[in-house]
Amino acid sequence: MTYRAPLKDLLFDIKELAGIDALTALPGLEDAGYDTAVAVLEECAKLNEQVIAPLNRAGDIAPSWFKDGVVTTTAGFKEAFRAFAEGGWQGLHHPDEFGGQGLPKLIHAACIEMINSANLSFALCPLLTDGAIEALLTAGSDAQRTTYLPRMIDGSWTGTMNLTEPQAGSDLAAVRTRAEPQPDGTYKIFGTKIFITYGEHDMAENIVHLVLARVVGAPEGVKGISLFVVPKFMVNADGSLGERNDVHCVSIEHKLGIKASPTAVLQFGDHGGAVGQLIGQENRGLEYMFIMMNAARFAVGVQGIAVAEMAYQKAVAYARDRVQSRPVDGSVAGSAAIIHHPDVRRMLSTMRAYAEGCRALALVSAAAYDASHSHPDPEARQQNQAFYEFMVPLIKGFSTEMSLEVTSLGVQVHGGMGFIEETGAAQFYRDAKILTIYEGTTAIQANDLVGRKTARDGGRTARAIAAQIELTEIALASHDSAAAQAFAKRLSAARLAFLDVVTFVVAGTKSDPNAVFAGSVPYLMLAGNLMAGWQMGRALLAAEDSLNEGEDTAFMQAKIATARFYADHILTRVPGLRDSIVEGGESACALALEAF
Amino acid sequence: MTYRAPLKDLLFDIKELAGIDALTALPGLEDAGYDTAVAVLEECAKLNEQVIAPLNRAGDIAPSWFKDGVVTTTAGFKEAFRAFAEGGWQGLHHPDEFGGQGLPKLIHAACIEMINSANLSFALCPLLTDGAIEALLTAGSDAQRTTYLPRMIDGSWTGTMNLTEPQAGSDLAAVRTRAEPQPDGTYKIFGTKIFITYGEHDMAENIVHLVLARVVGAPEGVKGISLFVVPKFMVNADGSLGERNDVHCVSIEHKLGIKASPTAVLQFGDHGGAVGQLIGQENRGLEYMFIMMNAARFAVGVQGIAVAEMAYQKAVAYARDRVQSRPVDGSVAGSAAIIHHPDVRRMLSTMRAYAEGCRALALVSAAAYDASHSHPDPEARQQNQAFYEFMVPLIKGFSTEMSLEVTSLGVQVHGGMGFIEETGAAQFYRDAKILTIYEGTTAIQANDLVGRKTARDGGRTARAIAAQIELTEIALASHDSAAAQAFAKRLSAARLAFLDVVTFVVAGTKSDPNAVFAGSVPYLMLAGNLMAGWQMGRALLAAEDSLNEGEDTAFMQAKIATARFYADHILTRVPGLRDSIVEGGESACALALEAF
Repeated sequence: MTYRAPLKDLLFDIKELAGIDALTALPGLEDAGYDTAVAVLEECAKLNEQVIAPLNRAGDIAPSWFKDGVVTTTAGFKEAFRAFAEGGWQGLHHPDEFGGQGLPKLIHAACIEMINSANLSFALCPLLTDGAIEALLTAGSDAQRTTYLPRMIDGSWTGTMNLTEPQAGSDLAAVRTRAEPQPDGTYKIFGTKIFITYGEHDMAENIVHLVLARVVGAPEGVKGISLFVVPKFMVNADGSLGERNDVHCVSIEHKLGIKASPTAVLQFGDHGGAVGQLIGQENRGLEYMFIMMNAARFAVGVQGIAVAEMAYQKAVAYARDRVQSRPVDGSVAGSAAIIHHPDVRRMLSTMRAYAEGCRALALVSAAAYDASHSHPDPEARQQNQAFYEFMVPLIKGFSTEMSLEVTSLGVQVHGGMGFIEETGAAQFYRDAKILTIYEGTTAIQANDLVGRKTARDGGRTARAIAAQIELTEIALASHDSAAAQAFAKRLSAARLAFLDVVTFVVAGTKSDPNAVFAGSVPYLMLAGNLMAGWQMGRALLAAEDSLNEGEDTAFMQAKIATARFYADHILTRVPGLRDSIVEGGESACALALEAF
Repeated sequence: MTYRAPLKDLLFDIKELAGIDALTALPGLEDAGYDTAVAVLEECAKLNEQVIAPLNRAGDIAPSWFKDGVVTTTAGFKEAFRAFAEGGWQGLHHPDEFGGQGLPKLIHAACIEMINSANLSFALCPLLTDGAIEALLTAGSDAQRTTYLPRMIDGSWTGTMNLTEPQAGSDLAAVRTRAEPQPDGTYKIFGTKIFITYGEHDMAENIVHLVLARVVGAPEGVKGISLFVVPKFMVNADGSLGERNDVHCVSIEHKLGIKASPTAVLQFGDHGGAVGQLIGQENRGLEYMFIMMNAARFAVGVQGIAVAEMAYQKAVAYARDRVQSRPVDGSVAGSAAIIHHPDVRRMLSTMRAYAEGCRALALVSAAAYDASHSHPDPEARQQNQAFYEFMVPLIKGFSTEMSLEVTSLGVQVHGGMGFIEETGAAQFYRDAKILTIYEGTTAIQANDLVGRKTARDGGRTARAIAAQIELTEIALASHDSAAAQAFAKRLSAARLAFLDVVTFVVAGTKSDPNAVFAGSVPYLMLAGNLMAGWQMGRALLAAEDSLNEGEDTAFMQAKIATARFYADHILTRVPGLRDSIVEGGESACALALEAF
């Protein structure tokens, strides 16, 4: 089977939940209305269905290959990346002035879901390039922006993020890569970076490495980290490529999944020093890096949704095809396709409901990001910003954690065939596992949720969102349908559980940090579940309204059924999480360290 | 790191929870007391730690290899299997009269946990051989038993189970392999069997295939299936090996995990017919096969526990070693080993609590199996039998499902390193995924739980077990400790949820099968969670008593802390499952089939 972009679902969310009609009324977004979204998404679907998805298995079987410092990507990747670049897809969300199309994040988010469904390994290259572009836009000098952005946006050059070192994974305070100032204003960079996605490859003419390093004499810890741009090939004044810089790939990793995506160990400065330019000011590197990290975290959340969608589509295709055993309700006389069996339907519905809920949350949050940049009212900008920032760790953490469950169910639907690599379901299971780890593990997201997003403002943003959820409950309760009534009840229970946890977190982050942080991932799972569920509740309302107007009956009924499933089978996990967090803080850290 | 057998935990469970002292008072089990258990387990630990565990990574890197009909196993496997056989481990649980040691299942279960922790792929060969031995013991003729059992029990020959065909996975009614009666009383077998674990290999002189096939003219469906013994090499009257039989391996699978274990496609009868002997009576094959399936299902459940234990040990070792970031409670001034971080402790505690709970359940159930065979009182035999049979789908289903979560957490604890294959954590994640599939998927276990184990006796066994759980709650409530009090509360909530579901299942299995079977896997997860949790409650009681007597303080405190963790962080999932099952039956199957 091949990938089919879920255009109807994406466009329903964009219109009914993310409110593109309101967004397009904002200054600067006038051209980015629903019709534009339809046109862009349809083109995007074609490229991904026809060109990029067919390379997914090939990339798993014949991954990127390292020899003598050179990385050769899977056959076909180079040409596909050309098609991607020439279609203007790298610049979709970036400013017109550097050759981009300046479309809102809302439309971009839908497009990156598609490319990641089509091919997670392939999609990582543009994903990281997007992050590098964001950082240069924010903190780069005019000269740097002019030098790099047009070539990155047109897909001639790609970008990387160089954070991790062997001793510095989640803890960037431990970064040791060294930057020595030179008389000409440049720096010489020395050090080793690991886990650099697309740190070396053959798909572009140049690679623009953004590198965290410590200027000689800088303070210890995170306050002494600066950000540098270190191109693989130096760029001459006229924009042409110059000498090879002293940054070299010394190996790539042998990984569980996303095998086509080369994960490089990069050595800086083994031959005299890699030439780097400071981005922005010294010692503010972490701040700039967080800009690209936040973009990348959102995108990794979308990767979770994307791989879940793909695993779902594959499992549905198999379940329709595979004939085995009689249905328990006697609805078919002999053996039937396994999609008739209730447990298979439960598994498929779980996969579908997760993907739909998380997709809706990501798109709604993307629209908030757009409003936070384009709204004329400062207060509206600030509220949208707070909303978006609250959601980022949930989108990253919850959508990726759910993708582990979904891809595991995808294998399970296939039974024994799922365990055979040729079937292809196992690849999603392997690929997905990185998503809860890179760009900040789930625990790092949960720390962010607890610290910066909940405790810092005393729970104000969290409670404001809960108040919005309550409005959805009221709207649901006013709908005269069993589904809406049932949904309102579950949503209310989940919201109250959330509020309990917010109170617990706000009260205890300083006074009882072990108890609060032991509950941080469960809190993330609770909040992510609730927020995605809330969007499913909103989807249910919109679908019931559309149904009453006679629109696309089958689609709307499916939306309602999936929402109801989410309420009864996924939202129901929330109250138990509340109990574990609020009542289990002590027991979570009770086992003596030496007893493990 | 290498495997360290959890001897203390195993022996605590054997003594305090499974009650080996009472078991050894039963006729025939007089020699199988606690001291015997200690001696056997210690020997078993040595073999597995020193000989079998060191081959685990090698088997993943250099799996079994197929060429021209021959399967070559990983270097070292053959010698290790010799050591296993010569130590008498294959015959541990089998009757003395055929060369076995006649030890109870209780001790055997502890031993198979160890070998599976050491090397899941390797352990599958003896696991399948055990099943074949059981089937021959139950249904084989005297001649068959004399011919095969001594050589299988001494490890000269191994056994296989041949059920699956391309069109017949879970649905054995669809088996097409054909058996043609011959004038000499044998049968000629023709057909293709797939997914045959150790269906071909080089570790033993002969392979004894037990094969489901349909005698020409037999009824359709499961009532026309017979069981045959089809040796790879014919066996002469004097017991020596004769001609090569017409069963040939045509390929082995390329799998997600357990790569060292060859999964064969076997072709029967391409050169005139494979010679088979009927086992027992014609058309009763499924019944006999269920004997070996039930033994194998229990063993696969133990595989889940085993891989969880191994993943836990590896994660703990890494968490003690890896230094990263400051603890949130300020207990260490600088960076600390990540085991200091609350979320890492939560992950490790989750892994540990699952493994301990499921281990205790498996061992307690093994003791019930032993009592069901050896108790002089028929009523006690019957009660123990009912208890054991109720637990088998839970041990298989829940212990393997939890192993997916545990091995995923194991990767997560390792962060980015976990995704790198050389680290070894990813192997457990890949290996474990087969456990929820083979020997009956989780859904098949759940069907068994709903149909044969719950609905058939109108919930009597389920309610009798709930009454026993209530006694544990009363005992916990009488213990004057916060842990016992908290545990009693959680256990009570979980038991009441279980009873609600039992009532729902009993009432609806016939009248509303879709709703009940859509909840069957959630019911299995609920019941497995409760039963394992119940054993943790019993462990807590025993540990508090031992603590009061001053025994092994650190061990008992750890047992109590782990039990408390289970209650607050795992048992808390039960009430939500109840809601999904009892209130979500309708929504589980609401999405129209064509809408997926």
